Amino acid sequence: MGARPRWRTIRLAPDGWAVNIVDQTCLPQVLVQRRLETMDDAAEAIQTMRVRGAPLIGATAAYGICLAVRGDASDAALERAAARIRSTRPTAVNLDAAVTRMLRCLREVPEDKRTAVAYEEANQICEEDVAVNRAIGDHGLAVLRALVPDGRRPVQILTHCNAGRLATVDWGTALAPVYRAHEEGIAVHIWVTETRPRNQGLLTAWELADAGVPHTVISDSAAGHVMLQGQVDVCLVGTDRTTAAGDVCNKIGTYLEAVAAHALGIPFYAAVPSASIDWDARDAGAIPIEERDGEEMRVVAGVGANGEPEHVRLLPTATPVANPAFDVTPARLVTGLITERGVCAASATALATAFPERGTP
Amino acid sequence: MGARPRWRTIRLAPDGWAVNIVDQTCLPQVLVQRRLETMDDAAEAIQTMRVRGAPLIGATAAYGICLAVRGDASDAALERAAARIRSTRPTAVNLDAAVTRMLRCLREVPEDKRTAVAYEEANQICEEDVAVNRAIGDHGLAVLRALVPDGRRPVQILTHCNAGRLATVDWGTALAPVYRAHEEGIAVHIWVTETRPRNQGLLTAWELADAGVPHTVISDSAAGHVMLQGQVDVCLVGTDRTTAAGDVCNKIGTYLEAVAAHALGIPFYAAVPSASIDWDARDAGAIPIEERDGEEMRVVAGVGANGEPEHVRLLPTATPVANPAFDVTPARLVTGLITERGVCAASATALATAFPERGTP
Repeated sequence: MGARPRWRTIRLAPDGWAVNIVDQTCLPQVLVQRRLETMDDAAEAIQTMRVRGAPLIGATAAYGICLAVRGDASDAALERAAARIRSTRPTAVNLDAAVTRMLRCLREVPEDKRTAVAYEEANQICEEDVAVNRAIGDHGLAVLRALVPDGRRPVQILTHCNAGRLATVDWGTALAPVYRAHEEGIAVHIWVTETRPRNQGLLTAWELADAGVPHTVISDSAAGHVMLQGQVDVCLVGTDRTTAAGDVCNKIGTYLEAVAAHALGIPFYAAVPSASIDWDARDAGAIPIEERDGEEMRVVAGVGANGEPEHVRLLPTATPVANPAFDVTPARLVTGLITERGVCAASATALATAFPERGTP
Repeated sequence: MGARPRWRTIRLAPDGWAVNIVDQTCLPQVLVQRRLETMDDAAEAIQTMRVRGAPLIGATAAYGICLAVRGDASDAALERAAARIRSTRPTAVNLDAAVTRMLRCLREVPEDKRTAVAYEEANQICEEDVAVNRAIGDHGLAVLRALVPDGRRPVQILTHCNAGRLATVDWGTALAPVYRAHEEGIAVHIWVTETRPRNQGLLTAWELADAGVPHTVISDSAAGHVMLQGQVDVCLVGTDRTTAAGDVCNKIGTYLEAVAAHALGIPFYAAVPSASIDWDARDAGAIPIEERDGEEMRVVAGVGANGEPEHVRLLPTATPVANPAFDVTPARLVTGLITERGVCAASATALATAFPERGTP
């Protein structure tokens, strides 16, 4: 039975206005809380990936607007804050959605009421995230139940990056079904890919260990080998943005896993909160791929011999590097999308049927 | 035009008996030569990957036998040395082949002649490697020539791990065609995957930079993305062991690249010196996959702030890790094998036709 964790990625400070986050750049070494007091603190936390994961970025963006409005509730300040926060990470659709929602809500409110309304809306965004992920967990649980193998071996699940509690306000997306299965006493074992260059797989290993879920860390390259060896029953990943046609934009490397899973007949699911669906993106080409700083490839962060955080350089600054942060897995390689409304096929029709208020098949 | 490098991975010391190697654990930071004086030095160099790459391991193993025989030329010592050296790396077929060849040659020679004969044979193994790789370079050059695109863009080549000069006595295997193309003035650009966990892609970047060949380092995960984006004309990898049926065992991650290349219609070639063919292995299952120490995943080597070699720990020792060093790409995903006798299909029939003295189709 999984214990509920003693931490949350984001929550209001006891003073009721500042925002406490788990600084994920300090994980998996040490659990550090960090206090955000200004919109710039929030923007910096998103940009430097102290918070990461599409839903958590959305929540942080919403609180960033709160902190801005608290300082200056004018229309001009509100628009400035929105633009600043939107500029931090181009791929995550939740960021844009959260900012748009905050703007839409606050523009109609007189300046002197904006701070209170902003916090109410941001809290609501967080609570909705928790409820959505819990629902994804329940629908994904049914997928995992159907895969429980004969005999005593656990369901073998391959995941990529971190789409867990640390990527959301709670539960996670891809890991929500895993936590639900663990709660229900279903034996699972998770293959955790390292996820270079930022090694978010180490966050997944950390939170799975924290919850007592059996797991093994492998290099991104080893994902194919464990699939080939028959050691994977299902792949389960998150998404940063999914097109209206069901193409899944997720952390770089997801496509390679999907193409191998497809070739080997292994089911491949993406956990897709509807907030991650970009209804305007009709195909994979519509998604801009964030190209991140090459130094992320050239320098690795860890812990030195003295136990302190330390960096080592792998490559000289002069070495040419490309660092695309995401790839897009075509819908045809995706077995199903696990949304808060249930599991649906990765297609425009199925998505429009599940979300008739948004989709136009 | 590619300048010939000013270093060689392995060569006899000026004294004519010790063996000088490039210590590849110091690259890409610094070019360090290391002197091997005993069989144990040679075994240690292979085991800790100061030398790596199947052909270079074979050459080092041969010189290891020389150093053993020089100290004690008895039958018992010879057999002990062979067993010790064979135990260092289980996957590389060249290692076994080189040791077998040295044994076969030396057993027939009286003890007092063994040292001289051993050095002669080891030198011969090295010269043969150079000739074989040069031939692979010429045959691979024809493959690349046929792929020169219209317009001015270079031939885009994806490689994995290091199958270059540093993996061989000279030229490399997968990189031999690249160096030949560069010499011939054909524009090429190489996508170099980092190749976690030991980052041998950094060695590839180092030797390509040394030779002036345009290249870009990417994460292993980004290989799929660049292929999807139409930025790869051909994949070109080495092999540690290839079955008689044409299944290619190579650095972990090769399979993922091959399966993506196949799905996208991108030709996928392996450079296969015939010494890397295991004629007794009839299928992929016959190849033992080396499981290396999990600490390779948990600790990363680089250069610290002071410019000195340094390690950082990514994961606690307690974190469960799997570290398979190789995977096996099924022959059906391989467009062709570039051997020293030409390019042939990845099939038992084609290999047996190319090597009638060995293959039994």
